[in-house]
Amino acid sequence: MSTDGKHRTVALREVGPRDGLQMAKAIMPTASKLAWIDAMATAGVSEMEVASFVPPSIMPQMADAAEVTRAVRQRHPALTVIALAPNLRGAQNAAAAGAQVIVVPVSASEAHSRANVRRSRDEQVAEVARITALAATLGPDRPRIEAGISTAFGCSLQGAVPEDDVARLASALAEVGADTVSLADTLGYAVPAQVKRLVRCLRAEVGAGRFGHLHLHDTLGMALANAYAGLEEGVRGFDAALGGLGGCPFAPGSVGNAATEDLVYLLESEGHDTGIDLPGLIAARALLADLLPSERLHGRLAAAGVPRTYHPAAAARASFLEAAH
Amino acid sequence: MSTDGKHRTVALREVGPRDGLQMAKAIMPTASKLAWIDAMATAGVSEMEVASFVPPSIMPQMADAAEVTRAVRQRHPALTVIALAPNLRGAQNAAAAGAQVIVVPVSASEAHSRANVRRSRDEQVAEVARITALAATLGPDRPRIEAGISTAFGCSLQGAVPEDDVARLASALAEVGADTVSLADTLGYAVPAQVKRLVRCLRAEVGAGRFGHLHLHDTLGMALANAYAGLEEGVRGFDAALGGLGGCPFAPGSVGNAATEDLVYLLESEGHDTGIDLPGLIAARALLADLLPSERLHGRLAAAGVPRTYHPAAAARASFLEAAH
Repeated sequence: MSTDGKHRTVALREVGPRDGLQMAKAIMPTASKLAWIDAMATAGVSEMEVASFVPPSIMPQMADAAEVTRAVRQRHPALTVIALAPNLRGAQNAAAAGAQVIVVPVSASEAHSRANVRRSRDEQVAEVARITALAATLGPDRPRIEAGISTAFGCSLQGAVPEDDVARLASALAEVGADTVSLADTLGYAVPAQVKRLVRCLRAEVGAGRFGHLHLHDTLGMALANAYAGLEEGVRGFDAALGGLGGCPFAPGSVGNAATEDLVYLLESEGHDTGIDLPGLIAARALLADLLPSERLHGRLAAAGVPRTYHPAAAARASFLEAAH
Repeated sequence: MSTDGKHRTVALREVGPRDGLQMAKAIMPTASKLAWIDAMATAGVSEMEVASFVPPSIMPQMADAAEVTRAVRQRHPALTVIALAPNLRGAQNAAAAGAQVIVVPVSASEAHSRANVRRSRDEQVAEVARITALAATLGPDRPRIEAGISTAFGCSLQGAVPEDDVARLASALAEVGADTVSLADTLGYAVPAQVKRLVRCLRAEVGAGRFGHLHLHDTLGMALANAYAGLEEGVRGFDAALGGLGGCPFAPGSVGNAATEDLVYLLESEGHDTGIDLPGLIAARALLADLLPSERLHGRLAAAGVPRTYHPAAAARASFLEAAH
């Protein structure tokens, strides 16, 4: 069955506890974070970005990053536990806390790079090199290092981001040893044809095996159309945040990531097994709404309810197997 | 330029004054409707469903259908003025008021057909036959008759709707003389692969030239992904409602159509000229919000603003032509 993750044909990475919470007005207590993460893991989420290793002075919502990472590793041995770290110091702390994947953001926009990590793009590539060198010292259980190219589809500060810049950056990141390279539409400006073009371009630069996830924000309502375009182009890894939680400090009026629940509906209905149980996910969303009443959640599925025509991919496979017997 | 409609490569039909208003809690006065329609026409909308010809006792929001249709014909000679009519009586009134296209809804779900028009599917096909016969008597300026297949992608009452039922219905509608046949995802349950499949199926039944519009609701957030799937399949006609206004009486928690402003962003960014000016459309949306404060509007673009990376298709063509000189 799908809930053991064995038949998953697509990897849906929940990033709400990191990308969603970092913009929240309220600070979510550690116990609440863990209860929410438990509920999502119970619903079948199999990889999750649980924290960002940044100085608490900059992001007090993430002051318990090490504690959360450690606790989730312990409570959910089957879950792939992911953390974000903008620099070597953060990566050291994330690795020490047991993060299995460390995502390092690298902006394709020079202006965004300086605003977000206070380094030029080249300096941030050099930081990724220091992080992969650190990882290499950590033995066979070392964390994988994923370089996440942010503002890959456009930037509120710089405007358009040339695809050549993204290609050069991806190539440089592969060269300094990033295990995977992901594409992030940080601002939510992307459109489907652009997604297809950039996915093809990135694959050509780093190889299909090194292509990581698509990380899509829903600022302009394009997240699901873009996810579908990625799916058509062969992408099988997507980020999403339950309830579309989140935003971007550089995008006024922005909303968060693609809503996980809506993306599960899309992927499953398209025949891709996420391993996620939709009613269980909606229960986790209700818990989130209780635990974080200051935030307005997005996404349509929870308001409308799971339609009676919903036919998850796992059910389709099960009835096929049954018929074959 | 695109605003004269000459270079349009895709037809975006605004249905807010009909599909949007029919569910509104407040009754919009005729003068407000006309002011809102004026603003959308000024923004470059070139076809619009302006009214539904149903008994005022059933839908008091549409009591001024004839008055609105007549006034819009007079005020906007370049606009294609469209009305919905569920039966012969409504079609007679719509034609008398000057509607250039009359959309007749026909449910693919038997249960929805009985609930919505109080007739079986076969009886409604017979009604379409009576309407096309009426149209044939009206000379060279006769209105075109469009059969809109509702619940084509699933139904809240019946559940799944077999694609064979849709195909048979489409074929019957073409046989009784419908000029075009459209597909409506009345409940908003559709997913992209299903859209592609059903568009292909319908084209095979009625011929590509007789395929009308895709009418997509955003109940589950799939409207833009589905529009993109249609676009890829060669569909060049889409319905949308400004601010995503509307809903469906048979879909609890449902929201309205694809938001026109978000769909314009998608289509233009994909290189399809809608003839619509996005800032002008957002101004029309602000007017709608003022005129109809009881309704919550949807859509993302208006909240986030038009991003600086926006590059409408017409501008792309203009700079190409400039470069060619």
